[in-house]
Amino acid sequence: MVGSVMAADLAAGGGFEVTVADRSPAALERMRKHAGDRIRTVQVDLADRDAVVTLVRGADVVLGAAASAIGLQLLRSVIEAGAPYCDISFMPESALELDAEARRRGVTAIVDCGVAPGMSNLLAAASARRLDRAESVAIYVGGLPSERRLPFQYKAAFAPADVLEEYTRPARLVEHGQVVTRAALTEPEFLEFAGIGTLEAFNTDGLRSLLHTLDVPFMKEKTLRYPGHRALMEAFRDAGLFDKTLRSVGSATVRPLDVTSAILFPQWTYGEGEEDLTVMRVIVTGRRGGHAARLSWDLFDRRDPHTGATSMARTTAFPCTIVARLIASGRVRRPGVAAPEALAGDDAIVEHILAEHERRGVMYCLTEEEGSRAACA
Amino acid sequence: MVGSVMAADLAAGGGFEVTVADRSPAALERMRKHAGDRIRTVQVDLADRDAVVTLVRGADVVLGAAASAIGLQLLRSVIEAGAPYCDISFMPESALELDAEARRRGVTAIVDCGVAPGMSNLLAAASARRLDRAESVAIYVGGLPSERRLPFQYKAAFAPADVLEEYTRPARLVEHGQVVTRAALTEPEFLEFAGIGTLEAFNTDGLRSLLHTLDVPFMKEKTLRYPGHRALMEAFRDAGLFDKTLRSVGSATVRPLDVTSAILFPQWTYGEGEEDLTVMRVIVTGRRGGHAARLSWDLFDRRDPHTGATSMARTTAFPCTIVARLIASGRVRRPGVAAPEALAGDDAIVEHILAEHERRGVMYCLTEEEGSRAACA
Repeated sequence: MVGSVMAADLAAGGGFEVTVADRSPAALERMRKHAGDRIRTVQVDLADRDAVVTLVRGADVVLGAAASAIGLQLLRSVIEAGAPYCDISFMPESALELDAEARRRGVTAIVDCGVAPGMSNLLAAASARRLDRAESVAIYVGGLPSERRLPFQYKAAFAPADVLEEYTRPARLVEHGQVVTRAALTEPEFLEFAGIGTLEAFNTDGLRSLLHTLDVPFMKEKTLRYPGHRALMEAFRDAGLFDKTLRSVGSATVRPLDVTSAILFPQWTYGEGEEDLTVMRVIVTGRRGGHAARLSWDLFDRRDPHTGATSMARTTAFPCTIVARLIASGRVRRPGVAAPEALAGDDAIVEHILAEHERRGVMYCLTEEEGSRAACA
Repeated sequence: MVGSVMAADLAAGGGFEVTVADRSPAALERMRKHAGDRIRTVQVDLADRDAVVTLVRGADVVLGAAASAIGLQLLRSVIEAGAPYCDISFMPESALELDAEARRRGVTAIVDCGVAPGMSNLLAAASARRLDRAESVAIYVGGLPSERRLPFQYKAAFAPADVLEEYTRPARLVEHGQVVTRAALTEPEFLEFAGIGTLEAFNTDGLRSLLHTLDVPFMKEKTLRYPGHRALMEAFRDAGLFDKTLRSVGSATVRPLDVTSAILFPQWTYGEGEEDLTVMRVIVTGRRGGHAARLSWDLFDRRDPHTGATSMARTTAFPCTIVARLIASGRVRRPGVAAPEALAGDDAIVEHILAEHERRGVMYCLTEEEGSRAACA
């Protein structure tokens, strides 16, 4: 879903010779239809270490958009090949365990480089740097269908199983400098968004690397949905529909989660041409020049009617292609494995990433408030 | 659940020698514990025609409280034995198909003789008779737990499978004298009830015999639940969780309804000593003496703390035992198969049934409004 947008972005302008690798011939066929003769495709199992090492050795930059289950193995292979890397595989493991190995080989690898995690990390860290003292970071993010249809008012632009995982895995937050854990779907709050109205936010486990890299005493990440979805999912979860324990039903033995997934996922799949949108707000508060200050970044993006690329694909692909280009050009050179907040120390890099998003039609709007003043940059 | 309350009611006062028949030794053992040596128990398969005929022949009256699936067969057997009958098996088929046979044999059989169907039919028909012209009948009824616990705010005092059936089977209503069909769970409305607050009513297929026996141009039956339950069940249904179509999940093949039932039913079962309550309102409107008139019957009943009998069991058992006593005493003699509205033509019978309920602590309160006057009888 995202890889084709990344390939098309890299092929545009002719600066790169682009090779797309996938295990699935059908996926490669779709890729050729989408990007035509501007790219080369090759059938490779990305979980196959030797094949990946051979494939990527000598590349100016490698972009990873694999299934999360093979994300860490793919990262390991690319580091072994000594190729610079930028990734949106969102592996469940901590990629930082390969940091020392990447440093040793002089490989720059930026992981979690999508919209959230990704731009959320970069903007949170960059905003915290702009303050004398950052007190809180709040990240609100959601991918939604434009049309709100009951009962779910929701479709998933990425693997729906990962969505249900978000609804069940305990969320880690930072309060008073300590990591605390809350049940997913808890602490609902309503927020207003121009062009869309009221959305409901709730705890999910989305801070990831920020838990360790950013020293701000209060941090939380919440998922945004249309009001009502959260309560329904809470009812499903509390009723036991997401349980992973095997259960006998007549002569069959099933996990409730598998049955619920089989029922829900077809309904959560976007149809051809159906519009999705992406909403994100990153709020950082603190003190600056003796005043209370608040920096708020807003993203509101819709599916591109010209290319047909979903908003999820656009907003996730572009951070990765923009940073990959920075790596390939040598402007970003930072041996080791890091998340995008590692780039927040260089204002010019942050500005470049935002400007490149704007050039692709994805607008991040900053509202700064200090004392009683407010201004949108 | 209901049979033991019926047996205890009949045994009280010593007017009857009571025999309880059931296929299950465990059920009979529970019955003996409950009613002690006042009743006789006998193990009989109520679907076995010969056994039932032998058992009931010569009885002063037979009460039926069987699983709905064998209700019609049981009725057939009792008619064949020539025994008078009063039943709450709520069979899915129309019992009236046995009307001619019962007439031929001179057998009085009153079916659907519980609270709803049952008292609802009797009160609707009796109220319609009190008006010069009845224009509408609305029946609102629900069995609920006293404690409202999320996500369901509901427990089932009878077979939960029948509850899900109510939530899926299309509801038949009468509008402008015509039977019309609406999806279950539709046309929600909020009603206020003293002692409990706001409840939500929605269409279910509960008019049964009234569709054919009562000539009133507008009739509807709605189920009452705590607000929120309806929307959740609608979401479950619309999501496909109540689907009866087989579906492959991994290596297993299951019906979603079976899996959902296996998950929900344990949560919908009343625990030992947990209080249930029964709420019913029957509203009949029309014209009387040149004025608009409105008769409204209210039932609000709780579990009996002394006997431990659930409110559902009490309110369902007593119409049946009271009418059975009327049949046994010869006060009700009406060869054929009929529902309780057939008794509405005799004011003394209706008053007797209400008084006998009152003696057992189940109170039906009538509010009459005519023009601008209102009075609670």
